[in-house]
Amino acid sequence: MEISKIEDFVRNGYKEYLPHVSIDCAIFGYHDQQLKILLIKHKLILGWCLPGGYIKRTERLVEAANRIVKERTGIDNLFLQQFKTFGDPNRSRFKEFDKEEFFKATGVSIDKGSWLIDDTISIGFYAITDFSLTVPKPDVMSNECVWCDLSELPKLEFDHDQMVIDALHTLRIQLYHYPIGYTMLPKKFTLSEIHALYQALLGKKLDVSNFPKKLIALGLLKKLNEKRSIGPHRSPHLYCFDKKKYEKALREGLALG
Amino acid sequence: MEISKIEDFVRNGYKEYLPHVSIDCAIFGYHDQQLKILLIKHKLILGWCLPGGYIKRTERLVEAANRIVKERTGIDNLFLQQFKTFGDPNRSRFKEFDKEEFFKATGVSIDKGSWLIDDTISIGFYAITDFSLTVPKPDVMSNECVWCDLSELPKLEFDHDQMVIDALHTLRIQLYHYPIGYTMLPKKFTLSEIHALYQALLGKKLDVSNFPKKLIALGLLKKLNEKRSIGPHRSPHLYCFDKKKYEKALREGLALG
Repeated sequence: MEISKIEDFVRNGYKEYLPHVSIDCAIFGYHDQQLKILLIKHKLILGWCLPGGYIKRTERLVEAANRIVKERTGIDNLFLQQFKTFGDPNRSRFKEFDKEEFFKATGVSIDKGSWLIDDTISIGFYAITDFSLTVPKPDVMSNECVWCDLSELPKLEFDHDQMVIDALHTLRIQLYHYPIGYTMLPKKFTLSEIHALYQALLGKKLDVSNFPKKLIALGLLKKLNEKRSIGPHRSPHLYCFDKKKYEKALREGLALG
Repeated sequence: MEISKIEDFVRNGYKEYLPHVSIDCAIFGYHDQQLKILLIKHKLILGWCLPGGYIKRTERLVEAANRIVKERTGIDNLFLQQFKTFGDPNRSRFKEFDKEEFFKATGVSIDKGSWLIDDTISIGFYAITDFSLTVPKPDVMSNECVWCDLSELPKLEFDHDQMVIDALHTLRIQLYHYPIGYTMLPKKFTLSEIHALYQALLGKKLDVSNFPKKLIALGLLKKLNEKRSIGPHRSPHLYCFDKKKYEKALREGLALG
């Protein structure tokens, strides 16, 4: 049963999926001041890579990205955003594909003319989630699926190292324009909570006193007339994201000026 | 001669070009407080659209984008940047292609199974240039190639209206992180020059006194110890982009904090 499904995909997959185009996903996990990324080990590929797959002809790109992440990792309902498309010659996932290995693993042979063995461009998506709440599960084509510390990232297969760099770069720019940290923080949070989140996502130390001033100047943060009591002499002010300003900025351009 | 070139492209183009993937370019032109966009009228398509084309299998994506713009419009050496990839079902350029019109115009018939008639995703690139210095020239496949006022944009073909919206959106976010205005201004400029540029690109009025403060706070602008003499009692201060800070920010994340 499993073999015939794979055989059908190898022979006829191009009817259901767009050839030459795939999606790869950089899924970042944040919890308690730590930043991780989700990696999978494909049965047919020796090293680690980002979860990825093909796009059905009936799917919008973001639907395809969500389905792929769900199928590959078991994680559902991520807010996935495009960051870049990769198409340099010879980047293709299966160009240097080991046909013997594939046959050993699946019992299916791949022809030279197969739709799977040709140049492929890949559309990169990224998302952030709380890794403490999401337990990844490998699918039938993967042996492992784990959260990996960004600081301990192994060399990845294909051009996936560059994908991680570009995903982080886009995330870091969008951090000042979209409510990206939104789901990673409680609705009302302290400056030290958002400070820790932004430090982890930006991968650098941020000045404790300048950082909130700039976020407030950009119109991202709103100071609330409320404090949180966390100890006898410790009751820091609470803040929230200014969602209205975000939405206005997204519609009309930025709030600067 | 022309016919056999087109025929060869229709029959065998998939050997040189990647099927299912195209590039479309939103090229913005700025001059003297006006913002325009470059549109072409393809010989085989009734309405206006963005200049676009296919990717050679030997090209990096940005090389393909530059070649396409040069071939289609005659404009060379643009700094093209990816903004988004479009792949919704039924967006394809040639899906509803009029085969009779194509035959009338070219003398070439297109088969049902042609690589040109199938779903296509398109990678959007954008660039900004000085429209007063660039005279677009249509290629053999286009009837017209003109600068169009953004405020007078006609309804575009396919999903190109959405492409313009998304290109502007990305440009407006990147305006605060990349030296995008760089080539549109003299090396040393006055606040009123950069104010006019940013107003045109953002498509809205910016407060004259708050605007430069925020750009300086973001680390984008540097005030020079120099003035420009433009009249008896008018000698505004000169500013420049802080290119070092940009480069550092691009490498390490943003300068905030």
